[in-house]
Amino acid sequence: MPSVPVDQLQGFIARVLAAVGMPAADADVVGAIMAEADARGADAHGIFRLPAYVRRIRAGGMNMHPDIRIARERPGSAVLDGDNGIGHLIMKKAADLAVQKARTTGVAWVGARMSNHAGPAGIYARMPLAHGMIGIYMAVGSANHMPPWGGTDMLLSTNPIAIAVPGRTRPPIVLDMATTNAAYGKVKAKAQRGEMMPEGWMVGRDGKPLLDPKRSNEGFLLPIGGAKGYGLAMMFGLLAGTLNGAAFGKDVVDFNQDYASTTNTGHTVVAIDVEAFMPLQEFEEQVDDIWAQMKSSALLPGWDEIRLPGEQSTRTYEERAAKGVPMHPELRTTLDNLAQSVGVPALGA
Amino acid sequence: MPSVPVDQLQGFIARVLAAVGMPAADADVVGAIMAEADARGADAHGIFRLPAYVRRIRAGGMNMHPDIRIARERPGSAVLDGDNGIGHLIMKKAADLAVQKARTTGVAWVGARMSNHAGPAGIYARMPLAHGMIGIYMAVGSANHMPPWGGTDMLLSTNPIAIAVPGRTRPPIVLDMATTNAAYGKVKAKAQRGEMMPEGWMVGRDGKPLLDPKRSNEGFLLPIGGAKGYGLAMMFGLLAGTLNGAAFGKDVVDFNQDYASTTNTGHTVVAIDVEAFMPLQEFEEQVDDIWAQMKSSALLPGWDEIRLPGEQSTRTYEERAAKGVPMHPELRTTLDNLAQSVGVPALGA
Repeated sequence: MPSVPVDQLQGFIARVLAAVGMPAADADVVGAIMAEADARGADAHGIFRLPAYVRRIRAGGMNMHPDIRIARERPGSAVLDGDNGIGHLIMKKAADLAVQKARTTGVAWVGARMSNHAGPAGIYARMPLAHGMIGIYMAVGSANHMPPWGGTDMLLSTNPIAIAVPGRTRPPIVLDMATTNAAYGKVKAKAQRGEMMPEGWMVGRDGKPLLDPKRSNEGFLLPIGGAKGYGLAMMFGLLAGTLNGAAFGKDVVDFNQDYASTTNTGHTVVAIDVEAFMPLQEFEEQVDDIWAQMKSSALLPGWDEIRLPGEQSTRTYEERAAKGVPMHPELRTTLDNLAQSVGVPALGA
Repeated sequence: MPSVPVDQLQGFIARVLAAVGMPAADADVVGAIMAEADARGADAHGIFRLPAYVRRIRAGGMNMHPDIRIARERPGSAVLDGDNGIGHLIMKKAADLAVQKARTTGVAWVGARMSNHAGPAGIYARMPLAHGMIGIYMAVGSANHMPPWGGTDMLLSTNPIAIAVPGRTRPPIVLDMATTNAAYGKVKAKAQRGEMMPEGWMVGRDGKPLLDPKRSNEGFLLPIGGAKGYGLAMMFGLLAGTLNGAAFGKDVVDFNQDYASTTNTGHTVVAIDVEAFMPLQEFEEQVDDIWAQMKSSALLPGWDEIRLPGEQSTRTYEERAAKGVPMHPELRTTLDNLAQSVGVPALGA
């Protein structure tokens, strides 16, 4: 597949968003975050989403001039009202505020309501790393694809969590996961490739395994660990949705079906200043030691290495920063059409 | 099975601990927490653990006069040095301190090192509830029963998390889970009853399902959702262990095998003051509404109700507060022998 340099992706995304009315400075921030998503291997959360964002903007479903303000605040907490702006902008502000507060209080928890889809969870959990801090991010997913455990009504999303911990000479350890066995994007990818899903991803309303991704609307995603994953999706929904005054449960708007309604998406970033607990260097060295311990474990038959959470994403980032992001010709065509329709030069042109 | 009133359990536990050298006021606190564990249905984390605690105390493995002190502190964070005291005492102090700090800062994160086993995670997550706060608890489990994903070296425990969110007219929603499909106590219970384990609980070093719980030392526990549960166990270990200066990875002492060595157990309590985000009543009403939404979902074939996390525990608590805690005759005999050996009256005598 042909590759596109990361800075070209970034510039293109910013141009497209500016062309549909986003202030240039904001479009630059969003372009940088979305291109980083692609660079880190979160292919379903980067430039792939741009056409849907543009569709929402054109349908009046997203505010191009949001007044992102602090609705409530304490020394170690805040809740932002995102005024229906794009999620990336709001959660970047949330992460910056959490880092600033945690410098004083040790830990800070900043949530947001009236936000929108923000791309991959790991991006925001990573933001505090550069400040010697641990980051945590939780979100209410942007469409319900899961019922409560034992039920069939779609009341829960894949509500993800990401946690990022800095290392010293090793890469940071970064978990970024949905609370379902498969994210819905993976189901769509299987359908596009004409492949069947493995057992465990979805079941039908009869409770039996659903393997054909083209019939995904007849069933629902399964949570990790059964009732446990259901519990995690529930708690992350209460923390990132309900507590922030954002949508959770039946109020979640399916962003794939409805481009005009306000989604009132909720997310939260937590920043933990390591120095509030122990000297940063000592901590990072111990995280490196944990990395080394895991890596040196004997292997199960058929395995060739132990991976730490986020390790693959770090490798992908290094590779793509150097060689560019591989782009499927179909996506390229979609983006060329998008460029033409908003009146900006095509990607790489 | 004959039942024992909760206050009798509490008094008995306190007497036994006092008899082996714990100051009476501390023994009362631990007795109340351990009896609450039984009342809430956490049978493997209440009085069942008393003989093992006494064994550790007698072996010199736990400090009966700990100087539990704040080792580092910021307005919204602290790390306690538990001075090798019993975990219940240390984590009660951690929860109290987190609640006190969160009143000002909105959110507070209090960890502990040099602690010991503290019973069920849910107990500590519930502590902030009475103060209009949400509670979170994480811990490094007290024995490694899991390798990193793809490996065979026992470097991880069942590292649990609990999250408790207050409701208004409904019970609180309380998730309390290990990051493995089954906690190790469940494996032991299967062995005691001579039953086989279901597939998914354990695998052998060959990676194949291990079903006989009597052979549990030949294999290891499986994480929820495969690599995802491994990732959660890893991150909770880094947050509750490494960040607090407590044991994680190869440094974890197996508390079932070694009664004398200092375990340096790590745990963390987070308190989130709801009023820092929205009016408490409004939040609690919305949590009640989420409860009602889940409950009213249509059901999968074969199911007769949807359960919210913690609902069963609340029911058990109400039942046991009224009728007492059912006690297996074998445990009763063990406790009678324990009473005799430390020189206190038997349970209920």
